[in-house]
Amino acid sequence: MSQPQIKFGILGCADIARKLSRAIILAPNATIYAIGSRSHEKATKFAASNNFPETAKIYGSYDAVLDDPNVDAVYIPLPTSLHIKWAVVAAQKKKHVLLEKPVALNVGEFDQIVETCELNGVQLMDSTMWMHNPRTARMKEFILDREKFGVLRSVHAVFSFTADPDFLENNIRIKPDLDALGALGDVGWYCVRAILWANDFQLPKSVTALPGTIFNKAGVIVSCGAAFQWEDGVTATFRCSFFENLSMTITASGTKGSLHINDFVIPIEEKQGSFTTATESRFNDLVTGWGPLPSQHTVVNDLPQEALMVTEFSRLVKSIKNDGSLTEKKWPNLSRMTQFVLDAVKTSIDKSGEPVSLG
Amino acid sequence: MSQPQIKFGILGCADIARKLSRAIILAPNATIYAIGSRSHEKATKFAASNNFPETAKIYGSYDAVLDDPNVDAVYIPLPTSLHIKWAVVAAQKKKHVLLEKPVALNVGEFDQIVETCELNGVQLMDSTMWMHNPRTARMKEFILDREKFGVLRSVHAVFSFTADPDFLENNIRIKPDLDALGALGDVGWYCVRAILWANDFQLPKSVTALPGTIFNKAGVIVSCGAAFQWEDGVTATFRCSFFENLSMTITASGTKGSLHINDFVIPIEEKQGSFTTATESRFNDLVTGWGPLPSQHTVVNDLPQEALMVTEFSRLVKSIKNDGSLTEKKWPNLSRMTQFVLDAVKTSIDKSGEPVSLG
Repeated sequence: MSQPQIKFGILGCADIARKLSRAIILAPNATIYAIGSRSHEKATKFAASNNFPETAKIYGSYDAVLDDPNVDAVYIPLPTSLHIKWAVVAAQKKKHVLLEKPVALNVGEFDQIVETCELNGVQLMDSTMWMHNPRTARMKEFILDREKFGVLRSVHAVFSFTADPDFLENNIRIKPDLDALGALGDVGWYCVRAILWANDFQLPKSVTALPGTIFNKAGVIVSCGAAFQWEDGVTATFRCSFFENLSMTITASGTKGSLHINDFVIPIEEKQGSFTTATESRFNDLVTGWGPLPSQHTVVNDLPQEALMVTEFSRLVKSIKNDGSLTEKKWPNLSRMTQFVLDAVKTSIDKSGEPVSLG
Repeated sequence: MSQPQIKFGILGCADIARKLSRAIILAPNATIYAIGSRSHEKATKFAASNNFPETAKIYGSYDAVLDDPNVDAVYIPLPTSLHIKWAVVAAQKKKHVLLEKPVALNVGEFDQIVETCELNGVQLMDSTMWMHNPRTARMKEFILDREKFGVLRSVHAVFSFTADPDFLENNIRIKPDLDALGALGDVGWYCVRAILWANDFQLPKSVTALPGTIFNKAGVIVSCGAAFQWEDGVTATFRCSFFENLSMTITASGTKGSLHINDFVIPIEEKQGSFTTATESRFNDLVTGWGPLPSQHTVVNDLPQEALMVTEFSRLVKSIKNDGSLTEKKWPNLSRMTQFVLDAVKTSIDKSGEPVSLG
């Protein structure tokens, strides 16, 4: 017996919506019900080239999607500056919201989205796909293992890629009116999330931008980094950039062990992913070598991580819709903390690297 | 026909001198001629347990080694606070000097050592062994390859290990009167050197200590980090600690490629070492995977890196001694720059993370 499926509407034809459309199709409890674009023609082409079911509605506006009473949930991959408007309207129209990252231009905007979702009893989740990969849970188990990892001391996260000239000229992610947070909001989002994730979502006591932020001509960040500090002496750093060869790493160091992953955001292969760990690495007596060698762990996932995300989101939506469950606060809480810390990094950048206290 | 051998005297019985004694024995152009310790008995035991040649002289003082006219060169593994005294006396007595790192408590002290060595025509080299590993030259080739690596944008270096309670209580490296620079001078030295090495020994324009420096009760640094910035937008960070599982990494990111090594200071195996590189890593069209996979490179070294260091040092000494060559300035210059930048990190730490300009 096939599962009842949550009906998705997609707002806009962003590049990333191609990946998410496939994820909705792959998710056993979700289906693409509609897409809306300001251009009906563009939406028609998008549907045709992304294996939409033939029954999918094609609309010439976002509003039409939100006004369709059969749409349960919307996926919003619009430029960040438009999130507040469309996430709020969607929630008001009782649509559950799967929202691209960064969730907003600042946490004040995001709080309005959260409030509207709460008021209307709809689920809110951001589209940070790697959180839903079973590999992520396995890595967390290691970090929480007192015997193998000890206690966390530091984290370093990187997400960079080399943007091509077209991206640097035309992509929404470098336009001040569309994605004003630039590389910080785009790739930096994942680094901030990774650091918070590694330290069990404890808020750092302070955030300090690293020297060397690079802005484009329009004043949008294209490369930056920051250092975080917690009360208990744990520290973290991250680096995000549009000017460096593709890299997506987390290194977490504990008193007894360490963990390294080099493709945390998008696994190299979609159906399995690896990470390495080491425990009690020591020099030999003469300090001419060391061991044990780090161990590699491979975790298989039956569905791509983005399809697992859609499945989890749809499970929550179905539970609210059919069983009268409350919304799951965990996801908007994680989004909010990520945005809050990201805002603090931005503030420190604006203040030339002055530490920003989050107490 | 066996090579003429440079006759080494060793000052003191430090733990690290066991590894260097073996290196001198392995180097084809060097031999252990003498060891001096304040305790004649300790020196005798050290010689016996470290395969010294039977002819090796055992002295009850450092002075006796320096007064032996047959000693060509000395290896000085004494606590950092004693470097200035003994390196200067050694140079005055025309002994070539292989000096443990950090080379001094500050660059002012080191300049006195350099000046005395110059005045007396003796070679000075610090004992940063990995610089002499052929793997290091291979990595440098990659970083300089415009096609495969592009232009350097950032570097991150880490050297940490989990010190045991005995180390944290008794080791010279945490004593303010012996190694006042603590973890910064010990493991941080390698990170600073690695960053300078990766950026072709260009001096950064500024150095900023990262928040979260940890001091022991005596006020010695046991964990810290810093960010470097160059005029052309290149940035770097490092982290060094006595409280985190053993890790010795360099990650260098360029516009086209990236390099990663996880055992740069002490290779896991002593006769071969690896590193990984990636060039033009890109997402696939749907951003559901990426490639090409990083490539692993293995470099074989016929002698351990510390024996290669002794061989190179001895080659220079022999050339000065037998052929009247001038001293090689490259090595003291690299030592000086490392110490200079390390001092700036210390200054920034002392000023609670204020950026220190090196212009």
